[in-house]
Amino acid sequence: MRVLAVGAHPDDLELLAGGTLARFGADGHDVTMCHVASGNRGSYHATAAEIAATRLAEARTAAAEIGALHATLGIPDCEVNASDPVQRRLAVDLVRRHRPDLVLTHSPGDYMADHNETSRLLFDASFFASVPLFETTEEPYGVVPALYYLDTINGLGFLPTEYVDISTVLEVKTRMLAAHASQLEWLREHDGVDVLADMRTAAAYRGLQCGVRFAEGFTACLTSLRVRTHRLLP
Amino acid sequence: MRVLAVGAHPDDLELLAGGTLARFGADGHDVTMCHVASGNRGSYHATAAEIAATRLAEARTAAAEIGALHATLGIPDCEVNASDPVQRRLAVDLVRRHRPDLVLTHSPGDYMADHNETSRLLFDASFFASVPLFETTEEPYGVVPALYYLDTINGLGFLPTEYVDISTVLEVKTRMLAAHASQLEWLREHDGVDVLADMRTAAAYRGLQCGVRFAEGFTACLTSLRVRTHRLLP
Amino acid sequence: MRVLAVGAHPDDLELLAGGTLARFGADGHDVTMCHVASGNRGSYHATAAEIAATRLAEARTAAAEIGALHATLGIPDCEVNASDPVQRRLAVDLVRRHRPDLVLTHSPGDYMADHNETSRLLFDASFFASVPLFETTEEPYGVVPALYYLDTINGLGFLPTEYVDISTVLEVKTRMLAAHASQLEWLREHDGVDVLADMRTAAAYRGLQCGVRFAEGFTACLTSLRVRTHRLLP
Amino acid sequence: MRVLAVGAHPDDLELLAGGTLARFGADGHDVTMCHVASGNRGSYHATAAEIAATRLAEARTAAAEIGALHATLGIPDCEVNASDPVQRRLAVDLVRRHRPDLVLTHSPGDYMADHNETSRLLFDASFFASVPLFETTEEPYGVVPALYYLDTINGLGFLPTEYVDISTVLEVKTRMLAAHASQLEWLREHDGVDVLADMRTAAAYRGLQCGVRFAEGFTACLTSLRVRTHRLLP
Amino acid sequence: MRVLAVGAHPDDLELLAGGTLARFGADGHDVTMCHVASGNRGSYHATAAEIAATRLAEARTAAAEIGALHATLGIPDCEVNASDPVQRRLAVDLVRRHRPDLVLTHSPGDYMADHNETSRLLFDASFFASVPLFETTEEPYGVVPALYYLDTINGLGFLPTEYVDISTVLEVKTRMLAAHASQLEWLREHDGVDVLADMRTAAAYRGLQCGVRFAEGFTACLTSLRVRTHRLLP
Amino acid sequence: MRVLAVGAHPDDLELLAGGTLARFGADGHDVTMCHVASGNRGSYHATAAEIAATRLAEARTAAAEIGALHATLGIPDCEVNASDPVQRRLAVDLVRRHRPDLVLTHSPGDYMADHNETSRLLFDASFFASVPLFETTEEPYGVVPALYYLDTINGLGFLPTEYVDISTVLEVKTRMLAAHASQLEWLREHDGVDVLADMRTAAAYRGLQCGVRFAEGFTACLTSLRVRTHRLLP
Repeated sequence: MRVLAVGAHPDDLELLAGGTLARFGADGHDVTMCHVASGNRGSYHATAAEIAATRLAEARTAAAEIGALHATLGIPDCEVNASDPVQRRLAVDLVRRHRPDLVLTHSPGDYMADHNETSRLLFDASFFASVPLFETTEEPYGVVPALYYLDTINGLGFLPTEYVDISTVLEVKTRMLAAHASQLEWLREHDGVDVLADMRTAAAYRGLQCGVRFAEGFTACLTSLRVRTHRLLP
Repeated sequence: MRVLAVGAHPDDLELLAGGTLARFGADGHDVTMCHVASGNRGSYHATAAEIAATRLAEARTAAAEIGALHATLGIPDCEVNASDPVQRRLAVDLVRRHRPDLVLTHSPGDYMADHNETSRLLFDASFFASVPLFETTEEPYGVVPALYYLDTINGLGFLPTEYVDISTVLEVKTRMLAAHASQLEWLREHDGVDVLADMRTAAAYRGLQCGVRFAEGFTACLTSLRVRTHRLLP
Repeated sequence: MRVLAVGAHPDDLELLAGGTLARFGADGHDVTMCHVASGNRGSYHATAAEIAATRLAEARTAAAEIGALHATLGIPDCEVNASDPVQRRLAVDLVRRHRPDLVLTHSPGDYMADHNETSRLLFDASFFASVPLFETTEEPYGVVPALYYLDTINGLGFLPTEYVDISTVLEVKTRMLAAHASQLEWLREHDGVDVLADMRTAAAYRGLQCGVRFAEGFTACLTSLRVRTHRLLP
Repeated sequence: MRVLAVGAHPDDLELLAGGTLARFGADGHDVTMCHVASGNRGSYHATAAEIAATRLAEARTAAAEIGALHATLGIPDCEVNASDPVQRRLAVDLVRRHRPDLVLTHSPGDYMADHNETSRLLFDASFFASVPLFETTEEPYGVVPALYYLDTINGLGFLPTEYVDISTVLEVKTRMLAAHASQLEWLREHDGVDVLADMRTAAAYRGLQCGVRFAEGFTACLTSLRVRTHRLLP
Repeated sequence: MRVLAVGAHPDDLELLAGGTLARFGADGHDVTMCHVASGNRGSYHATAAEIAATRLAEARTAAAEIGALHATLGIPDCEVNASDPVQRRLAVDLVRRHRPDLVLTHSPGDYMADHNETSRLLFDASFFASVPLFETTEEPYGVVPALYYLDTINGLGFLPTEYVDISTVLEVKTRMLAAHASQLEWLREHDGVDVLADMRTAAAYRGLQCGVRFAEGFTACLTSLRVRTHRLLP
Repeated sequence: MRVLAVGAHPDDLELLAGGTLARFGADGHDVTMCHVASGNRGSYHATAAEIAATRLAEARTAAAEIGALHATLGIPDCEVNASDPVQRRLAVDLVRRHRPDLVLTHSPGDYMADHNETSRLLFDASFFASVPLFETTEEPYGVVPALYYLDTINGLGFLPTEYVDISTVLEVKTRMLAAHASQLEWLREHDGVDVLADMRTAAAYRGLQCGVRFAEGFTACLTSLRVRTHRLLP
């Protein structure tokens, strides 16, 4: 199976689906991790160019932990916009290039605009990629892939309907997230949070809900052409 | 896996989950089909005792189609009551006897009281069966099984979150339902419906929703101890 | 058309649907107003028997305002119980006797148990009334009537989906409610509310929502056999 | 009454509301059918200009079946955007020109962006059309029309609250949809579906839900100025 | 302020609201902790009488940790039933005796029947306690108290709308819960869970959601007579 | 505390939160009232420039009633667009300039686009204001403020979860709203409504719901970084 996971910023995927992606990788599936926004505005110290470069390197390190391909759309932070035709084309090409069976992206009701726009951007693009006369760099991809939504940040407003047991890969997930050294530092300053500890708490809580040590939660986007009669998550 | 499916009246399970149960059976799982109410009041012509006997025989025929065990709680129609201690004990014993990994029963918001009470009866009993000092005829069963809700009659108020492809077993499902000859006749008189044709329409519609020819839809009861990290449905 | 409106206590129907019932009456429909509980416990001064007698008389006066029949199930206040077989039979007989096309009753999520139990009691009974071998005093009634839910007290937790313009009958509604002199006094003492003024506020607010001076709001119970393809409300 | 029905692509209206529009037409109401996107990208064989021309002709044929006017906004497929000021003006002019009592358009949560943007475009424009100093080609229209949402494709995520009996006009609806010969062929290739057969299944299923042979389902947009106290649907 | 907290079994309150109750106690409010069911069936080893006695002692120890009064209704486990008139009277007397400004009890959609019935029992009783002619041992209490629902077990199906910071009292909460030594052992055997560790995980997760170290989450029951215009929780 | 209230047009804040803002002012909090759109298109008689000037003066008068600062983003009516980068920058600067602890703005599901876009604009901007390298005229503001949604126009689709008692300030609210003389006239013409009377009806109805004479209702936006463990509303 080909899995395309798309987060707003570097580290979002690691935080919300790192364990699931690690399991996909371990099971031999082709995994691509993409961040839409470059992370270029999340720093008190570095310039935008510096922080974007740092975070790209960190994201590649994280993806490499599980043998995933890495991609980025390179949109500046705070500018993800699903209504923008240029971004739509970038996203359509992303889908067409990777031809996923399954797309993972943010929930449409998360805590800030880049997440919510990323959600809509991928919902839209993963359909448009199939339209033959929507011409972009890449060839049309005739399948409308299944689409799953990631948990929200800290789970607010989110009730998972499917859970993935990540107990055996929590340390992999931890390494993936720890690869984002600059972001861990930034979130400590900007939001006052210890990302690694909080991730562990969230994974343990989602685990409580489904009777395993550590888990991640998701919901399926159930619209026409996207529903499947078998489980797609590990 | 052991599957315990519990409908309100004879033919409810066949109508709402016959294909799924057929697939469970074909996959080698142990399936038990139970109706809670005897069906003893759904007739314009026969006495209560006659119609209950007829329908029990029909239900057994239907279960035999897929090699399922058959059981009944024998409650009179219109009297299913989840608050009733006697009925609760019957339901706990049903669960303890069959020790299911998975329970299928009605959605709690279906179209008439026997369905809704059956739903609550099994929700309650499938937990209480695990309580050691809740003493009944049978031994406690230490597992709180997963619980899935059947579609409602004609799908009103119901949005499935999981679908089962029943394309290959639609004819089996049709035979299971056709075994309820007396009920098909009664529903034609009482509600003016052609059950077999309507079932086929519903199966085709649920199929449209998930991209197969014929399907059945379900939702999972996501409360503590009941959530699983793998797919239980076929 | 035959309309059966069933409230928990004397004055609930007048408060929540008085205008709609007045319009049904004015349009020549057969209207029956029934209160399930006798109102026998809502007084600081009178005995239970006294207050029940007073309130029955008041309810009859109110029904007479619009030429409606009046009925009561005579359950004591605080004891309405949809699981109770005796009450179920009373409710089934009520339905069978009046053979309604439309039943109006409380929302299942109102502010106190008698309302919520009345809601379930009528949901259940309006189906069971059609079952031929559910034997009661009255003959089976072969139709499962449409069912609409009344607004909740003060509209909490309730979003109407259908509105009835009661601008032309507000004074009738006011007289119907004013007929409940003892209850108006009691609610002033028990809950500190001026029922007539509050009713007028609620009617004006529901009117704002639908662009008329005064209105009442309802939701339809959309379960199998109860959905209609034409408007039933005035 | 003047009815303005607006679908994303040619054939969406026929599929989701053809029967209801046929009934409006037969009842003597003025019906306008408009597609927002030209359908110019839904082909494996033709050029964009060819397919748009073909589909416009098909849409006109379909509208002619019921004596409806036909209009289009002529937006390219995959580019409907409710945030776009040019599209907003086109939609405002559409509303001002036809001065509808009732607007029908897509549900805001349908399966692809053109549908969802069409929904928002008409929600917005049907209000803005009433604003006097929002200057466009047409004169302001002082009424904010009622707005109903069409069923989603295959009914996913959609629970109708109002139903229209289309039993007597199913063949008209079938001819309307069959007029879209190129699209029927395209959907067979692109999504693997037989549109006519699936439409019939959906109509039969919605019919089951409301007790008629064939039906269509809708929900009302219940926001200020749009609520009515009488039924607008046939 | 007088606070009446009512859980299904000994330890439910400690688990779901121990920190909040500790804060109420520390702020000088009068707190009563009541368990409805005696806990008499949750053991593999002891008799029902033994385990009930043990758990009552444990519950009293826990309540004493925060200077709370303790009460119990003494219903056997698995038999809490909001429809039962005897239990209703016990609950009404509980409310009348303690005359609370605020009642805390289970969410109506928790994981097993005793919790859900407790929820309804207190919803019902906290209204009925105000009815003058509903005669019980105690005098009527003229106030319908505010009602808040506790989190569900492991938070399934629950989205808190109000949070209480329990960071400063987590160790008190831990001691309250640890007082239930027999239950901690039982849940380890019956459900395979480490209650103290899981409680800490849940408190940390709810804390993440509201930006403090440890928290508990609640929802308000917003029905007529229960809504307040000031915060009731600490 | 610093409170930033942002409505779509002049008079929206006065209508939906005037009493709450008056109480904030009376309690000594710093209140800023901002309208996003200039109100320049809501007139049958004046030019756009005239009406905008008139309404700005009216809005300032209203704000002065409670000692609030006044601000406007000056967007033309019918053009509020949360996806527009220029508007986003204006909104970010608004937040950065006023550094609010609490933002009040429209519900995302209100009756017309300017309201809904204002809601999203402030949701987005109140986060982006904290991002250090999102460079605008003003300095970054390191706090993500709490966000509350105003009631919708006429309360459609809205169930408040928090209420503010405005009984003591209803006359202040009335004066604030009456300051919008031109708008009161326009709404009488455009929508046929008497704003002052309708406001009083709505305030009385929300008061009924929470047991006071007059009230306003709100919901909290419960996403990460925005949840608080104390009451923010008066």
